[in-house]
This record gives sequence, C-alpha cells and structure tokens, in this order.
Amino acid sequence: MSPKPLHLNAFLMNTGHHEASWRLPESDPLSSTKIGHYANLAQIAERGKLDSVFFADSPSLWGDIGRRPSGSLEPTVVLAALAAVTEHIGLIATASTTYNEPYNLARRFASIDHLSGGRAGWNIVTTATLDAARNFNLDALPTHAARYERAEEFLRVAKRLWDSWDDSAILGDKETGLWGDQRLVYPAEHAGEHFQVAGALNVPRSPQGHPLLVQAGSSESGRAFAAAHAEAVFTAQQTLEEAQAFYADLKRRAAAFGRDPGQVLVLPGIVPVLGDTEAEARELEAELDRLIVAEYARDNLAGLLGVAPEELDLDAELPANLRPESEIEGMKSRYTLVVELARRERLTVRQLIGRLGGGRGHRTFSGTPEQVADAIVDWADNGAADGFNIMPAVMPSGLEAFVDKVVPILQERGRFRTEYTGTTLREHYGLPRPENPRRREALETAVRGVLAHSR
Amino acid sequence: MSPKPLHLNAFLMNTGHHEASWRLPESDPLSSTKIGHYANLAQIAERGKLDSVFFADSPSLWGDIGRRPSGSLEPTVVLAALAAVTEHIGLIATASTTYNEPYNLARRFASIDHLSGGRAGWNIVTTATLDAARNFNLDALPTHAARYERAEEFLRVAKRLWDSWDDSAILGDKETGLWGDQRLVYPAEHAGEHFQVAGALNVPRSPQGHPLLVQAGSSESGRAFAAAHAEAVFTAQQTLEEAQAFYADLKRRAAAFGRDPGQVLVLPGIVPVLGDTEAEARELEAELDRLIVAEYARDNLAGLLGVAPEELDLDAELPANLRPESEIEGMKSRYTLVVELARRERLTVRQLIGRLGGGRGHRTFSGTPEQVADAIVDWADNGAADGFNIMPAVMPSGLEAFVDKVVPILQERGRFRTEYTGTTLREHYGLPRPENPRRREALETAVRGVLAHSR
Repeated sequence: MSPKPLHLNAFLMNTGHHEASWRLPESDPLSSTKIGHYANLAQIAERGKLDSVFFADSPSLWGDIGRRPSGSLEPTVVLAALAAVTEHIGLIATASTTYNEPYNLARRFASIDHLSGGRAGWNIVTTATLDAARNFNLDALPTHAARYERAEEFLRVAKRLWDSWDDSAILGDKETGLWGDQRLVYPAEHAGEHFQVAGALNVPRSPQGHPLLVQAGSSESGRAFAAAHAEAVFTAQQTLEEAQAFYADLKRRAAAFGRDPGQVLVLPGIVPVLGDTEAEARELEAELDRLIVAEYARDNLAGLLGVAPEELDLDAELPANLRPESEIEGMKSRYTLVVELARRERLTVRQLIGRLGGGRGHRTFSGTPEQVADAIVDWADNGAADGFNIMPAVMPSGLEAFVDKVVPILQERGRFRTEYTGTTLREHYGLPRPENPRRREALETAVRGVLAHSR
Repeated sequence: MSPKPLHLNAFLMNTGHHEASWRLPESDPLSSTKIGHYANLAQIAERGKLDSVFFADSPSLWGDIGRRPSGSLEPTVVLAALAAVTEHIGLIATASTTYNEPYNLARRFASIDHLSGGRAGWNIVTTATLDAARNFNLDALPTHAARYERAEEFLRVAKRLWDSWDDSAILGDKETGLWGDQRLVYPAEHAGEHFQVAGALNVPRSPQGHPLLVQAGSSESGRAFAAAHAEAVFTAQQTLEEAQAFYADLKRRAAAFGRDPGQVLVLPGIVPVLGDTEAEARELEAELDRLIVAEYARDNLAGLLGVAPEELDLDAELPANLRPESEIEGMKSRYTLVVELARRERLTVRQLIGRLGGGRGHRTFSGTPEQVADAIVDWADNGAADGFNIMPAVMPSGLEAFVDKVVPILQERGRFRTEYTGTTLREHYGLPRPENPRRREALETAVRGVLAHSR
C-alpha cells in the first residue's frame, strides 16, 4: 500500500511567525493591513498546490503595539478578497462562537463558500482572553466550560442554517414564474439554551454544503469538541512522542463518537527555518532570535502564565509556584505546553522566549529542505500527523522557500499532489460533502402525520 | 456659477429591481449567489465613473422563494471580493445595528476600507422585520424607538473604535525594534445603555478614517438619525414636490445639528427603464409588468401593510381601514409612501403591484436616455436631489444602458465626472476625512492632571 498523501496548510501572518521577522531588511513592517501582501502569500501557497491558507483571529487588540505588528484585517473579509485572486486553494478563517451570533456567522461562511466556489473553511474558536470579553459587554471571561457549551449549540444552529435550503430548492423556471420551491426550505426552528433562531438562512446551500470545520484547541474540552465536530485539527506539538499520543487520542475519541477517524485530519504546526545548508538555517534562526526585544516578550509570557512580568527573571528558570492548568480559564493547553517545555529542557526565561518567539509553542525546525521534508515525512509515517500546518518564520521568503524547495521533494517522493485534483477545499482534504438531513426529516414527519391520521 | 456636479450610486440587486426581471430571456435566474455577476456589474458602474455601488440587506429570508430570486450573499464579504476586482468605485454595504455587535462590525468596515484603499461605505439600518428578530433570540421586533436608540449608541461606539488608533501610531522602526507607539492607542472605554466596549479596535485607523456613513430611513426617527450622522441619504420619492420637501427638511435638520448641509447628500432612487425610443421603453416596462405573478406580489404587499392577503382584492382599491403610520413598528415611511401612492392615484391592488414591482416604492421612469438625463437634471436643479440612487429594472442590461447612454449625456452637459479625480469614496462624494479627536482629548486630560497637581 502506498503511503497516504500529506495535507499542507499555510498559516499566514503578516511578516511571519517569528515575532521579530518584521525587523529583517526584507520585511515590510506595514504589511499587516495590506491585502496585496496576503494575496501574494496565497498565490505562492497555491503555486505549491497547498490544500489551504489559514488566518488566526481574536476580536481584541493583543498586547502592546510596541512589540510587533499589531492589528489585522478581519479574516472573513480577507478570505472574500483572496477568493477573487486565487482559483484553487482552500481559504480558512478563525471566528469565535463566543462573540458572534450563529445567523450572521453561518451566513458569512456560506457566502464565502459560494463566492470562492466551495473553498471556505472555519476554524472554530471559543476565544480565551479577558480583553475580548470586555469588548462584548462582559466584565469577565466566560468559563472554559461555558464557552464550549455555547460553541456546541452554536455549531448545531450553524449546521441547521447551512442545511435550511435543500440542494434542489431553486428551480429558476422562467416559464411558470416559479423561482424556487418553498417546501424545500426548512426553517432552523432552534430554541436552545443560548440561542433562538427561527428562520432559514437567506443564502442557498453552498457548494460544500458546510464549510470545512477546523479546530485548534487541545484542552480536554477542545479535544472533545474536535473529536465530535472537527474535520481538520491544528495542534502545537513539540516532540514526536507527544504528537503520537495526541494523534492516537484524537482518533480514538472520534471513533468513540461514531465517526470515521480518517475523516478527522491532524495537522501539527511546524515553523520551518530553511537554509541551503544547516549552518545557513541556524544563522537565520539566530539572527531572528537576536532581534527579539526580551522585555516585550517577557510581558507577553507573563500574560500567558497569569503572573506579573516582574516575577519572571530573564536569566532564571520559571518560578516554581505556577498554577495548575485546571485553574487556567484561558488557553489551557498552550499554558501547559509552555510550562512543560520550560521545565523539561530547564530553560531560562530568556531561552524560553527565544523558543516561543519563533513559533509561540509550535515546533521550530531549522534545516535544509531535505531535512525539513524528512521531518515532515517522519511524523506522518509514525502515526503523529496527517499533514502539517506550515508556519514560516518569515513571509513571504520562508513560504517561498517551503513551496519552491520542500514541496518538490515531497512531490518527488510521491507524498504530495503535483496538481489540484478537486475543486473544493473538502476535495483537497479528501473529505465528503455533508448530506442534508432536512428533506428526509420533513418527509418522515409528514409520513408520521399521515399514519397517525389513518389509525 | 456652474451647477453642482451630480453623484450617482448604482444599487445592485441580482437580475434587477423589477421583481420579474429574472424571467426575461437575457437574465440568469441563479445570478444572486454568483460573485462573477456582481463583479461584472461593479465593473460596468466603474466604467461609467459612478461614485459607488450599493447592496441592501436584512438578516432573514424574505418571503416565499417561489416568487423571485431569494437569498443573497452577505454584503460585507461581497464588498471585499469586489474590492479585489475594481480600482476606483466606492463600495457600500447595508448592515444592521440591531443584530450586530459594534466591535465586530466596526472592524469589518475598517478592514474593507483598508483592503479597498479607502472605498468602504456603510448603509446604517435598524432592520424592521419580525423575521430578523426571530433569528436573533427575540420573540418580538424591538420598537422603532428602541432600535434607533441602540443605533445612536452603536454608531458612537463604532466611531470610538475607528478612532482608537492615532493616524501616526505606527512607527515600524526596525532599528529600535519599536513597531508602534502604545501611547497613541486609545481604548474605547465605552460603558453605555446597550454596549460595554473597553478596548481599542484591532485594526489601525483606515484610509478614510471612518467609512462613508449612509442612511436610508425616512421616518421621523430615520430623518433625525440621518440629519445627525449620515453623509449620504438614499430615499424613495415619487414626485418632485415630495422630493423637494424631503430635501429641504433634511438639510434644515442637518443645519440644526450644527452640520454643513452640503455634507449631507440626498440621493433619491430612480428606476430607469430605458429604450432608444419612448415606445421601446414603455414596451419593456409593460413586458416586465406582464411577468409579475400577481398572487405572490399580493402576499408581499399584505406583509408590508400588516393585513392578511385575503383582505386585498386584486381588482379593488386598498381597504379603507388600514392602520395609521404611528401604529407601524416596521418600515414606517415605506408603509406611508405605498398607502399614499395608492390613495392619490386611486390604484387597484393589481395596479399598485405593477408600480411596486418595478421599484418597490421608488420612482420608475421609462424613457429615452435624453429623457432620463432630463429627469435627473430637473430634480437636481430644483432642490430635490444632490444625485441619484440608480436602480436599473434589469441587470446587467439596464445598468449598461444607463452607463453607456445616460452618463455620456450628463458628462456632455458638464454635470458628471469624466474621470475619477479622487481615490477614496469620500473624495468621490466631495466629503472630508474625519479628524481623530482622541489625541487632543488625551492631551487635554493630561494637561488638566498637571494643572490640578500644581495647584
């Protein structure tokens, strides 16, 4: 049996995932609000036949703007703009279930799916920052549990809305003047704990039926949600052993939900730092780390750990008395990953900042294109990944290097497509278009009515 | 003094504003979800050097899909897609203050303003349908007054957010590693009746500062809101006298708010039905009216009037016992316009449907290009309009006819631009970029602190 083909997503972020990337001579420090920059990146990724590009998001201004490019264009409108300048590549945006209404968000993703010809994906997040809560009428961050409960109901409503038009509801019959068949429109009729949504979506069912559903939380609730609903999972994993454990756990959980584990794709993040020689790659990595302003980075780390910046000595290890993950209401799994990384490798705060500055908890891998390709195939062949979330340290140059130097190696080895074979994002990932259950449900209800009446 | 130049907006809607336009041989009945259709329309409008294109919107599925093309792509993502395939023309989308959160919506418009290079406009609506309320956790439509109160506060918050970055906040200084000046970021710090929004927007101030603010309600509250805030006003006016009265009223109200009346542009809707001869134009209009399915149209009219469809006899006038406008919580001014039109011209329900099917209350004008140009100039020269909201009965053909036949006449008469002279939507409309008051406010606060301390 030939090995499974890999799936590759490009995680786009202004000048790159290394927080000091904007300081390199090649970088445009103002790129974060320039759509031309993102259009260029998406076109580079499409040249490499990647499955998709992806944008992270949170509805708040993150930290001090002194440190690094801050602020960003809202990702759903960015996807719409990119759909117009690309033809094949999938387009995934992050959006929060805690700070949106299902009708609005389901509609935007259905619209993007239409205008991209079936290339939309939604990275479902519950948004774990107090800053965001305070932009949406709240004084406190809703608990982790409350956010995930709302997310469950949100997604249920969104699916009802995406399925509220039968695929055959539109007739367009000019002769009779009958544009559509109202009997094949199914109002959401949802009345739940968090939401009441009565009507049908005002967007016909989209090319993919539902956008691709992506998830990136690795906490207990996050894994449960991913196993129940996600079709692609982005995850931060530092070692092969951890990645294998996560992969096996998620596939097992998906099976326990009655799902085909092959339809839940696990994509660990990797921050490739590429050079034509190992020395060149290490030099680029070192240059980037030198450009980090340590004091700013310490403030950010302190925020993640929930301690005051003064409690972190740059040249000492992390304090011993940090809180357990169970007490963290924010990004639980990221918290644990960072603390475990620091403890395992006995890193000073300064060293930890270097590691995080590169990939914010994701695995940084410096090397030649051959070495990066080996690292990717190694995890895929050892039960740790169905593909990768590529997070170039510097963009566009790092994405170009990956596409032009690493992708051809994966193609030569028969592990990556040389042409797009499908037209939708679901087809790129080998996932089916969801059936619409509503017509059958409506028929069954009608039949039950007739039977009850005939008794 | 040469007469003022006109402003022209193209109101885009699937196959055209006549509800039966989709039944014409030339029309694609599936165009409403095709972005290529809207890209074509926007490019036609841009070829005619129009100020802007515009999309109406409501977050609910409107009526029975049997009657005419239903469902539509969400307009903010449509604007983003159109920004990528046009260069000059302004892009205006409708969005509801009742069913959005200020942080999310302010952010999307700021993002579209960035990615279009300063071409975004927001048509502010409060959304007057029960169907929409029932998609957003409500059992009843909020009252007209409550919706406008929320809109006032919504807009105040949105402006705080658009102004939360000083124009000079970004430094991008690679040498020192200082990307921005956090002192020039001003959190919204809004705590009001409907909203609490603490933070700054996570989008830097956009090319236009604020998107162009558009309004289209003509009720008492709608006019007050427009006079206080709007920079362009779309309105439905059937006769010159009514249009003059509305124009004068709005300018007077704007002045009473201390605003320059010249910076509140009034654009009545006009539905041009063009033919090379008058007879040709009338034949097209008659053909369209023949294609209306009267029973469907009656249902829709009944909904607007708040009566049961059976109460409307197709071949009789409207019932005498309709409610006064004051009891209507929905679209007040549209209700009155329709009732007055029917009573004034003693129209049967069937005749009224023909008039509404063409323009839904807007003025239909059939004629040659010369006649349409005359009609436009006539209102502009007689204190009834600063420009027009062009609503072609059939699209693309009616928009093409307007751009290729009417626009050149207006250009020859020196009443319309022959090239774009500005780059932003505000520049097209001759409106200034709003200043950002926050830096001065922050300085004044600091000075007061120093003075208090020195006493």
